[in-house]
Amino acid sequence: MHYQKQPHEIAEYSLRGLATGRIEAFSDGVFAIVITLLILELKVPEIADDLVANQLAPRLIELTPRLFSFALSFIIVGVYWVAHHHVFHHVERSDRTLLWLNILFLSSVTFIPFPTSLIGKYSDQELAVVIYGINVVVARLLLLMIWRYATKNHRLVSPRFDAFRVNVVAKLIGVPIGIYAFAIGFSLISTKVTLILYGIVPIVFSILPNILNRRNAI
Amino acid sequence: MHYQKQPHEIAEYSLRGLATGRIEAFSDGVFAIVITLLILELKVPEIADDLVANQLAPRLIELTPRLFSFALSFIIVGVYWVAHHHVFHHVERSDRTLLWLNILFLSSVTFIPFPTSLIGKYSDQELAVVIYGINVVVARLLLLMIWRYATKNHRLVSPRFDAFRVNVVAKLIGVPIGIYAFAIGFSLISTKVTLILYGIVPIVFSILPNILNRRNAI
Amino acid sequence: MHYQKQPHEIAEYSLRGLATGRIEAFSDGVFAIVITLLILELKVPEIADDLVANQLAPRLIELTPRLFSFALSFIIVGVYWVAHHHVFHHVERSDRTLLWLNILFLSSVTFIPFPTSLIGKYSDQELAVVIYGINVVVARLLLLMIWRYATKNHRLVSPRFDAFRVNVVAKLIGVPIGIYAFAIGFSLISTKVTLILYGIVPIVFSILPNILNRRNAI
Amino acid sequence: MHYQKQPHEIAEYSLRGLATGRIEAFSDGVFAIVITLLILELKVPEIADDLVANQLAPRLIELTPRLFSFALSFIIVGVYWVAHHHVFHHVERSDRTLLWLNILFLSSVTFIPFPTSLIGKYSDQELAVVIYGINVVVARLLLLMIWRYATKNHRLVSPRFDAFRVNVVAKLIGVPIGIYAFAIGFSLISTKVTLILYGIVPIVFSILPNILNRRNAI
Repeated sequence: MHYQKQPHEIAEYSLRGLATGRIEAFSDGVFAIVITLLILELKVPEIADDLVANQLAPRLIELTPRLFSFALSFIIVGVYWVAHHHVFHHVERSDRTLLWLNILFLSSVTFIPFPTSLIGKYSDQELAVVIYGINVVVARLLLLMIWRYATKNHRLVSPRFDAFRVNVVAKLIGVPIGIYAFAIGFSLISTKVTLILYGIVPIVFSILPNILNRRNAI
Repeated sequence: MHYQKQPHEIAEYSLRGLATGRIEAFSDGVFAIVITLLILELKVPEIADDLVANQLAPRLIELTPRLFSFALSFIIVGVYWVAHHHVFHHVERSDRTLLWLNILFLSSVTFIPFPTSLIGKYSDQELAVVIYGINVVVARLLLLMIWRYATKNHRLVSPRFDAFRVNVVAKLIGVPIGIYAFAIGFSLISTKVTLILYGIVPIVFSILPNILNRRNAI
Repeated sequence: MHYQKQPHEIAEYSLRGLATGRIEAFSDGVFAIVITLLILELKVPEIADDLVANQLAPRLIELTPRLFSFALSFIIVGVYWVAHHHVFHHVERSDRTLLWLNILFLSSVTFIPFPTSLIGKYSDQELAVVIYGINVVVARLLLLMIWRYATKNHRLVSPRFDAFRVNVVAKLIGVPIGIYAFAIGFSLISTKVTLILYGIVPIVFSILPNILNRRNAI
Repeated sequence: MHYQKQPHEIAEYSLRGLATGRIEAFSDGVFAIVITLLILELKVPEIADDLVANQLAPRLIELTPRLFSFALSFIIVGVYWVAHHHVFHHVERSDRTLLWLNILFLSSVTFIPFPTSLIGKYSDQELAVVIYGINVVVARLLLLMIWRYATKNHRLVSPRFDAFRVNVVAKLIGVPIGIYAFAIGFSLISTKVTLILYGIVPIVFSILPNILNRRNAI
């Protein structure tokens, strides 16, 4: 007969059974900051006093590629926030592993301003476009890991949560990964097409669920 | 007879029936950061050691236009926060469309530091003043869209919420849009008057409700 | 006989009876960012490769005044957070006026990094020290206004909240204002003494309550 | 016979019996910002237009040490967040002393970007490595102080919270301090080994609890 560990001692190491409130608050903070830092890339041009009247308009137009990278990253970070919201809407409990998977996911989200700035400056460089794509794919893979970990054997979701819904959410997270991988490959031919694909994917996957709903609701 | 989709499957795509707690937390985070980033525009002047005693005061006075743009944007971001608070005080549920309308609204709020910095540097340039005004109008239009979307057929508000109150809130959000449009047009004549109008509108619309209340309370 | 306005219509303008949750969340966000931005003033020195071994230590020692201003502002922002926490521990409801008083208070808190940076660079300049002191006094005055507004006729606090406690909190907020005013005046004689006073006041007023407690608890 | 102070008056000074919600929200905000600011160290290289195609890849590779310091600090800040989460999972009430211990702890966390940037630039300098280590040790000591203060005589934890669990948490916080101290000492021999130790400790102490759990669960 060996010593039987008490449930609370196991909980001590694993932090099993924690509420998810602080994960959500911490993540919301990170998302809010990342989305706000993106704008810092947009610097107001410095123009000498006597040239301002003539040069302000053309100098602002020069900022267009950075404005595009700002908009793109804003949409992409928005997509992750909605997806994270979706995942944690169903996840009811947390444990130490989930805390760390979430921190890794957030690290990939906080990284986004770097490749955003990279394609803002060097949008015609394949390397810049590829790094951006890899960042986006890694973030999505980590979110998929969170979902798989939480739903396996109903580990951290309600026992009544059915397999159909587990798969719907998994597909909404996972299918874009394939499309992004395709878009990254396309950068060999044209970085412009890749950038357009990057922007279209999140928009389609945000609008699609609403269209599916309406059709089903008829 | 066709397959009838179960309610939970519809909910899966649309995220219908979500609580609004995380929208508010995420938005509060964005507002808090935007309002704090504004001060980063105010840089302490670099002065050589032997000149500090003489030059600190005049160099600080030179910062006045930036101080004015800081104050203006602080008030305007404050106005949006109060208005957002007002709207989400009544919105009881959220769905995927609301999440995205809110993200678009927040993107227009995070953009404010850019035109703020622009009018801080080039306050006499019509273009700078117009860009600022457009930013402010777009933000307000998006907030109005959120309100219209949420209240249409009591989609996301309480079924007991009456039409009178829907309109009071809509007017508090919408009327300043007309005034801002007028102020933007005035920049053709004088950018100074436009800037003063920009500052007066939010103050009037913040104090007005209190005056209306007191008169009614008698 | 005239039309009697319904209570909910009054509430529509004044936002009377709002919960304080979002005020606290928004304020916590602002405090968190301000306290974190302070460290951005501490820049790692750029040293040429062949000189690093010799120059790193002396160059880091040169940062001492900035380290001091970081520590000072960290304590002062911390004091405001504790005081704000204290005030909103008792404030149970909010209205539009309170939202705006709080935004004004937060604007004075977000301003702190500017004079912090100022005394980090020009700690021997009376002007820098005075601006810092004025910022601190204005923030405290606004917090006192919040407290007075909320407690007048038990406007936003519990009806059972007694006058004795209203005064204890008011004094904890208000007494340091007098001391800071004295410290600002002292800058005519010595900016060093003023800076030391700035640092001592918050420490004393943070420790004092605990000492008072222990004496009373015996 | 002397005047007996009423319980609520004592509470007025000490803020005894406060909920911990705002401590957690404020701390989550600080953690979120610190973790996001780390990426700002990674600046996109400025390259002349005609050289971009050739130089982008090598210039990005040059960023590797900064990428390493980003990853290291991300893990370390993550560890503190998990540990803080763990501590405040058990702390049920707060008082003025706890508020201040937590602010001191957060000040050591917000400081991390500075030594992170230092080892990102001067990773071969013993001084840089030692400063980083001291920062990490001080943060952990402060968290240990929070835990000791909160659990002493069940001051701020549940009266049913047993001594065994107090010690498990204390050891999870405290043991790495010894290892970090050893790693700091090792920098005399090799700064590289020290940096590797810095990175391994948090990973081991994050995974270890899960391994301990699984063994016990069998």
